[in-house]
Amino acid sequence: MDNTSLQSNQKEFISPFITTEAFLNHWQGHRRLTRKVIEAFPENEFYNYSLGGMRPFAEQVMEMIGLAAPGIRGIQTGNWTSIEKPILNSHTKAPETKREILNLWDWVTDQIDTIWPQIPQNRFEETDVAFGQYEDSVYSILLYLIDNEIHHRGQGYVYLRSLGIEPPAFWDRI
Amino acid sequence: MDNTSLQSNQKEFISPFITTEAFLNHWQGHRRLTRKVIEAFPENEFYNYSLGGMRPFAEQVMEMIGLAAPGIRGIQTGNWTSIEKPILNSHTKAPETKREILNLWDWVTDQIDTIWPQIPQNRFEETDVAFGQYEDSVYSILLYLIDNEIHHRGQGYVYLRSLGIEPPAFWDRI
Repeated sequence: MDNTSLQSNQKEFISPFITTEAFLNHWQGHRRLTRKVIEAFPENEFYNYSLGGMRPFAEQVMEMIGLAAPGIRGIQTGNWTSIEKPILNSHTKAPETKREILNLWDWVTDQIDTIWPQIPQNRFEETDVAFGQYEDSVYSILLYLIDNEIHHRGQGYVYLRSLGIEPPAFWDRI
Repeated sequence: MDNTSLQSNQKEFISPFITTEAFLNHWQGHRRLTRKVIEAFPENEFYNYSLGGMRPFAEQVMEMIGLAAPGIRGIQTGNWTSIEKPILNSHTKAPETKREILNLWDWVTDQIDTIWPQIPQNRFEETDVAFGQYEDSVYSILLYLIDNEIHHRGQGYVYLRSLGIEPPAFWDRI
């Protein structure tokens, strides 16, 4: 090993911003908050209310579910196809009740907790083509999924506020 | 070093989710997108338009600026007080033009790029009391600042859409 690659490897190992264990907790904290935002919506407005021609929050949540479930398996295995049972991809239609969506949400939460420790070491720094379309480092792919959730959840906050409903506090991740 | 601490150290060093260098790029990518969202607002609506009784986007952007500028210095030094020149904290009022806010935004961007390489090694895993109020790991403090930016920027997207203005693409971080 020459000096350059030694330095490069050292740099990689001595400057982690966050560990994988802590990052899982960060992600699940966001998922807990999003779950509270789903709960805060009245059933009808969850499916039908929108502003500026945007999608109702139910459809935004189905996007989150349809990305996270195949996403965590793709991160683990490199297989980015739809989940087959329940059928889940970014085009999956919302089930008819908030209760069913919350059940799906909780199923995905369990999948993430189960799969996370099985993700191969150093997987996050690999490059992959997420969902067969988006080539990037695996850490960037996962950050994108979470950022997308925060982005749409923030929009859900505006829906709630404009309905006169106080959303959960942004810092509440318990 | 006994076995337990050796294992603990190994775990920490072999499972980084993302390096500090890559995380800086992730943050600045978000800041570039937020800058485009600021640019997309008409001058008047930037300062005056809101939905659901929420703050106009100018005030939300000032919160981002007022957290990021003292925040990056706090992360570097442990000093979480206001920046004195220009005066910047989370209560700083917006200057009167979008141009001046963009100038402040760019000043903070430069500060982040300048300070980042000076942040002491292993600083991100330390615990600190951000802004004298919020005790957490430094990586969590920084993630919170960025998540807060994504959250409010998502709200800015709803403002823009409801004004009939197409926001920049969420994936556009160039």
